[in-house]
Amino acid sequence: MLQVNEQIEKELSHYISVLNAPQIIKDAMDYSLQAGGKRIRPILLLATLQSFGQDVSKGITTACSLEMIHTYSLIHDDLPAMDNDDLRRGKPTNHIVFGDAYAILAGDGLLTYSFQLIAQDPKLSPDQKVRIIEFLAQCSGPEGMVGGQVADMQGENQNLSIDQLEYIHRNKTGKLLSFGVVAGAIIAEASNEQIDIMKTYAENIGLAFQIRDDILDIEGNEEIIGKPIGSDTGNLKSTYPALLTLEGAKERLHSHTSIAKEIIKDLNINTRLLEEIADLIEERDH
Amino acid sequence: MLQVNEQIEKELSHYISVLNAPQIIKDAMDYSLQAGGKRIRPILLLATLQSFGQDVSKGITTACSLEMIHTYSLIHDDLPAMDNDDLRRGKPTNHIVFGDAYAILAGDGLLTYSFQLIAQDPKLSPDQKVRIIEFLAQCSGPEGMVGGQVADMQGENQNLSIDQLEYIHRNKTGKLLSFGVVAGAIIAEASNEQIDIMKTYAENIGLAFQIRDDILDIEGNEEIIGKPIGSDTGNLKSTYPALLTLEGAKERLHSHTSIAKEIIKDLNINTRLLEEIADLIEERDH
Repeated sequence: MLQVNEQIEKELSHYISVLNAPQIIKDAMDYSLQAGGKRIRPILLLATLQSFGQDVSKGITTACSLEMIHTYSLIHDDLPAMDNDDLRRGKPTNHIVFGDAYAILAGDGLLTYSFQLIAQDPKLSPDQKVRIIEFLAQCSGPEGMVGGQVADMQGENQNLSIDQLEYIHRNKTGKLLSFGVVAGAIIAEASNEQIDIMKTYAENIGLAFQIRDDILDIEGNEEIIGKPIGSDTGNLKSTYPALLTLEGAKERLHSHTSIAKEIIKDLNINTRLLEEIADLIEERDH
Repeated sequence: MLQVNEQIEKELSHYISVLNAPQIIKDAMDYSLQAGGKRIRPILLLATLQSFGQDVSKGITTACSLEMIHTYSLIHDDLPAMDNDDLRRGKPTNHIVFGDAYAILAGDGLLTYSFQLIAQDPKLSPDQKVRIIEFLAQCSGPEGMVGGQVADMQGENQNLSIDQLEYIHRNKTGKLLSFGVVAGAIIAEASNEQIDIMKTYAENIGLAFQIRDDILDIEGNEEIIGKPIGSDTGNLKSTYPALLTLEGAKERLHSHTSIAKEIIKDLNINTRLLEEIADLIEERDH
């Protein structure tokens, strides 16, 4: 597995430090960027680059942009008007530390800055920048993450079908994971056929990621996960185990992982790292 | 003056209608886009294009993106956590109609979609798209509008210096007005020298715009403005008339307008429309 968390965190801090902006908004943006997390999205991007035999440094800026978008979405999701969460990964959430107004603006700032960073990246061609920005906006906006969040809110306290549940997850979490993989492939100058294969890989590990989340909410170790288990059941939330039984959810998890690992064999590149990530998502304990 | 409001409103609706997203978020985005307003930012962009002898249709998509960014900022500013405004232009604000959560997401959606639209615009070259996206993010993010909003919040109930007040307005409102003018010039393939002149023009009409706002809060007609006059004094808000006297503010307004109209004479293009806009900003009654 790539050991890039430290580098990503250093770069994220650097990008905030060079901003010509009031200190308080830089502090608010930096606070949530440095609040930890698995960094799965930047890792996917850089792992894709490495799998295509490319220097991973080419993708660092785009990886940071991606993490900024993910982080903005967490800040806005945690707001009292949304999920009203006081803690994330054991730390006070952004609005608890900085207040609701600055938390909204920190999210807006991260979202906007992420597009600026890609547009300014000297390592990418104008064509690559435009393709990456277009796809990032699609994956994170109304046709992606924002749309998934809306569908999730609409589905609260309702019995969803498996198709409705999958729509939510494909958009709310899946598309941003896909972005990491596809952006890596675009930066590696992969062919359109290769990018399509990588999209299928990403869609499958994205769904596997979410199913594993639902399973961990039943079987996980609270101390390792860092949040109470059983919260989905308490919230009357539709989950894969609820719709498919726990055994059925595990089968589907394994099936998505297998499809992801199988399809990348057609890429004709060294896919060991991408297979490892798929396995890691299937087996993770937090 | 360009009569483009109807066309802009039609295009804005079109861009929302084609979104593949849950209907509720499309409705929330469209509601605020269609809530009226002077459309000064898109008009500036299209007037710049026309002044450079270009077909204004080349700039319609970027003009819509700009109006989406402006609209997202109004939706988020009106939230209870920010200004807590129930009415804007005589209509219930977004969160009053759709609730706080959807209002936050509608703002996020508009912000993200605006970058997508520029990236997808078939009328622009990749180079133009990258320059426009970079400048839009700078003007609207932490180094622009978001930074200005933060400075404005920090300056509440304080006696600001004229430099502090100008920092707020240059960023909170000025930079997005500048974006309109500079984006028009980039689309018109203006030279770097011409773009610099247009930036100075835009900075001056941007400050004039804000000074006129402050003067209208004292001298305006409530029915024409659509909000109560005297609200700045009630809120202990630092304003140009408070810092410079009403007479001094009028002098500064006229000075900015004159500088704007003077500098564009160096462009060697037909600047009649740009002069008219500068005069309109100086003399507007709402």
